[in-house]
Amino acid sequence: MLIGKVVGSVVATQKDEKLLDRKFLVVQIHGHEGQPRDQYVVAVDSVGAGPEDMVLYATGSSARQTTITDGRPCDAAIMAIVDSWDLGGENVYEKWA
Amino acid sequence: MLIGKVVGSVVATQKDEKLLDRKFLVVQIHGHEGQPRDQYVVAVDSVGAGPEDMVLYATGSSARQTTITDGRPCDAAIMAIVDSWDLGGENVYEKWA
Amino acid sequence: MLIGKVVGSVVATQKDEKLLDRKFLVVQIHGHEGQPRDQYVVAVDSVGAGPEDMVLYATGSSARQTTITDGRPCDAAIMAIVDSWDLGGENVYEKWA
Amino acid sequence: MLIGKVVGSVVATQKDEKLLDRKFLVVQIHGHEGQPRDQYVVAVDSVGAGPEDMVLYATGSSARQTTITDGRPCDAAIMAIVDSWDLGGENVYEKWA
Amino acid sequence: MLIGKVVGSVVATQKDEKLLDRKFLVVQIHGHEGQPRDQYVVAVDSVGAGPEDMVLYATGSSARQTTITDGRPCDAAIMAIVDSWDLGGENVYEKWA
Repeated sequence: MLIGKVVGSVVATQKDEKLLDRKFLVVQIHGHEGQPRDQYVVAVDSVGAGPEDMVLYATGSSARQTTITDGRPCDAAIMAIVDSWDLGGENVYEKWA
Repeated sequence: MLIGKVVGSVVATQKDEKLLDRKFLVVQIHGHEGQPRDQYVVAVDSVGAGPEDMVLYATGSSARQTTITDGRPCDAAIMAIVDSWDLGGENVYEKWA
Repeated sequence: MLIGKVVGSVVATQKDEKLLDRKFLVVQIHGHEGQPRDQYVVAVDSVGAGPEDMVLYATGSSARQTTITDGRPCDAAIMAIVDSWDLGGENVYEKWA
Repeated sequence: MLIGKVVGSVVATQKDEKLLDRKFLVVQIHGHEGQPRDQYVVAVDSVGAGPEDMVLYATGSSARQTTITDGRPCDAAIMAIVDSWDLGGENVYEKWA
Repeated sequence: MLIGKVVGSVVATQKDEKLLDRKFLVVQIHGHEGQPRDQYVVAVDSVGAGPEDMVLYATGSSARQTTITDGRPCDAAIMAIVDSWDLGGENVYEKWA
C-alpha cells in the first residue's frame, strides 16, 4: 500500500454496470515523510473516506478483496483511513492534531 | 485507475482469437490536474468510448472483470467515461462545458 | 497493453518444463507516437510474430490467458500483431506501406 | 521481492474489517548494494518484524499468500526477515554483526 | 520477463513457513543490449541458477506458476537460464563463449 490524500472526485455516469454507486476518489500519493508527490490514483472508496483524509489504498487484484469492489473492474481501493504514522519513533502525521 | 484521453486506435487482424471484435484504443494518460503526460496505454473499450473522450481505465487482472474482457489476454480496459472531476472543490474538467 | 517491436530472441534450454517449445522474443517498447524507447520486455509469442513486427503485448496474469501461456510462469505475452495505428485521425504506422 | 528496512508504522482504526489486528509497517526500500532509496511501501507484517529490521516483502496477489493476509485487501506483505545478503561473495549486510 | 544476472543471495531464517528451503537470489536487471542497470529483484530460483548466470525471471502471479513457488508469498521467480540472445541477428550474449 501507499499513503495518499483524498484531493478530489471523478463523476462518471457511463461506466461498467458493476461499478454503479461506487465512488471514485482522486488520491494524491504522499511520500513516507509526508510530502505530496506529483502522482495520483483514482480509487474506489470502501471505508467512507472524505475530502482531505489521509488514506491507505491497495492496488491490483488486492483492490478487489473488499465487499465494495469484489469482482469489479477496479484496480485501486481505499481500504483504510490513516489516523497517524511515525518514522523512527517521530510522529509524521496526526489526524486529530 | 488513471485518467486518460482516447487519442487513437490500433488495428490488428492477427490476434488471439478471444480478442476478435474487441476495439483497441490508444489512451494518453493525464495527470490529476488535467495535463497530458507522455505516457499511454492501449486499452480494450468496454463502455463505448469515442475519440477525445476522457476515460478511466483499469489494469491487470482488474481489466478482465468486464463482460467484454473476461478471460481474455487483455491487461487494460476502459471501464468508465469521465463526465467531470474536481480537485479541492475546483472543477478541473467538464465534458459538457 | 503497450506497442513494441520484435527486435530479437532469447535462447534458454534450461527452463521451467511448462515453457518447453515456447518462443521468447525481445520486444522493444515504443511510444504512442512511434518512437522507440530504451525499454524492453521478453515476451512469449502466441500469434506467430516475426522479426521487426510491431506487436501488442499483455503483462501479468493477463499474459496467461492464451492457450500458449495458460498456467505457465510467463508474465508477458504477444497477443496481437499490429497492422496500423493512428492518432487523432493521422496514421502513425502502417505495416504494409 | 525487494529488500527494505522497517522505519515506522501506520495507525488506522477505520479500515476494511478483514484487516482488523493487522499491523501496517512503513518499509523504506533499499538498493541491492544496501543504500536506502527515497521509496517506501506500507506492508502488512506476517513474520514478526520489528523496528530497523531489514526485510523482504512481496507485492500484488503474492502478498496474499500468507495466513495473515489471505483474502484481504493488502498488496504488500513482509514475508521474511533478512539475516544477511552478499554480492559477488562479499557480505553487504549482516544482522548480527 | 526481463533479463538479469545472478549477483548474490539473501539469507533469511525467519520467514513464511511456505518458503522454507527456497533459495532467494539477488538478480541485477540488465538492458536488452546487455548493459547492467541499477535495478534488482530478489527472486526464488526454480531452475538451478548459479552465480553469474544470466536468467529470465517472471513477476507477480506468474511467478507462482512453478512447482517451487505455487501458492507461496513470492512475487519473482527465475524460470529460465539464458544461453544466448540476439538483437537484429547480432549476438548480444553467449553463455558458452
